[in-house]
Amino acid sequence: MRPAITAFESSPDQGRGLARDMRVRWALEEVGQAYDVRLVSFSAMKEPAHRRLHPFGQIPTYEEGDLALFESGAIILHIAEHHVGLLPDDANARMRAIAWMFAALNTVEPPIVEREQVSYLERDKTWYEARLPLLDNRVRNRLDDLSIRLGDGEWLDNGFSAGDLMMVMVLRRLEGKGILEDYPNLSTYMARGQARPAYKRAFDDQLAVFASKPTGA
Amino acid sequence: MRPAITAFESSPDQGRGLARDMRVRWALEEVGQAYDVRLVSFSAMKEPAHRRLHPFGQIPTYEEGDLALFESGAIILHIAEHHVGLLPDDANARMRAIAWMFAALNTVEPPIVEREQVSYLERDKTWYEARLPLLDNRVRNRLDDLSIRLGDGEWLDNGFSAGDLMMVMVLRRLEGKGILEDYPNLSTYMARGQARPAYKRAFDDQLAVFASKPTGA
Repeated sequence: MRPAITAFESSPDQGRGLARDMRVRWALEEVGQAYDVRLVSFSAMKEPAHRRLHPFGQIPTYEEGDLALFESGAIILHIAEHHVGLLPDDANARMRAIAWMFAALNTVEPPIVEREQVSYLERDKTWYEARLPLLDNRVRNRLDDLSIRLGDGEWLDNGFSAGDLMMVMVLRRLEGKGILEDYPNLSTYMARGQARPAYKRAFDDQLAVFASKPTGA
Repeated sequence: MRPAITAFESSPDQGRGLARDMRVRWALEEVGQAYDVRLVSFSAMKEPAHRRLHPFGQIPTYEEGDLALFESGAIILHIAEHHVGLLPDDANARMRAIAWMFAALNTVEPPIVEREQVSYLERDKTWYEARLPLLDNRVRNRLDDLSIRLGDGEWLDNGFSAGDLMMVMVLRRLEGKGILEDYPNLSTYMARGQARPAYKRAFDDQLAVFASKPTGA
């Protein structure tokens, strides 16, 4: 059964691969599962047909036979449970890898998204510049801890896992912000993820969508 | 093997049960698993001994034999996988319940935590009052969608699951903010969760910790 995912019809980031379909594409490439992509416009995402798949009107979604899923974390966990390559065999190591998925999404990503969102939503406000150091500090608090835990390790918990996939994608949202550069081991870790052949295939595939629609939405 | 979790030695919320150990306690009560609780102080949480269990120096943690976990989402998923009562038997329904766990933690909770955090961190700033409506709107955007999806359903996807447990706990963080009251079906949903005997046992147990230490930290 060949699964189908949804992705943005027009890239908010000009094909930089920061949208969340990239996470799912990368997971599917890691396990060697072919998939279809259905592109949705920003307006179609908010229509009832798409909301039946995704209650919050976002991408990605995942359809496979009778199963319809939303939330990239759940989709990647589903893929990881049905294929070899994203979670360790050992039961305890498997749960630790899943803990890193949750840590990426619920502990590390929120302050990063917050910093990103205010740059869209509050750039014209009088307080925008004054708040940036506060937001940066909240990101740095998380990176300080993450950097200490990673140390000189290659991945967060021995071999590469879905936890690393998610964490690398979360860290990518900091590109160009001048923060990650202060954490050499995290920068190297991110680059290590991006150097994986599966990452590159996924990245090229999402870029190809936008290369054919260069004007954006 | 009786698991052990960690919780705050002194309650930041005076025993209102908003700390994340409450989520894990509730899950353990739902499945009828006895557990031990180790209380940690705010300073001990940041020490190396605790950081070995939790890289970000938070609670809860979960220890069971050789397994040590952090992140309430991962801990509850682990409990759900090893006991009956928190995830449906049907494979697709099981994954949808897990998707609601991720949705609670990564889509609904971040704007709620953000609104809460600024009330601690930025209350003395000149922009504090002016930003509150922006923060409320971001919370309301999520609740609008969640309320539509829930409709007149009892739980998010047929029977009660770990996804509901997590969503109810996330919604509880809005208590007293004057927002949830505008969503009668979500208010009823939250109350339905809190009326479960397992919830009540968990709540009473976390309250008992603080009833014996009324002065806070």
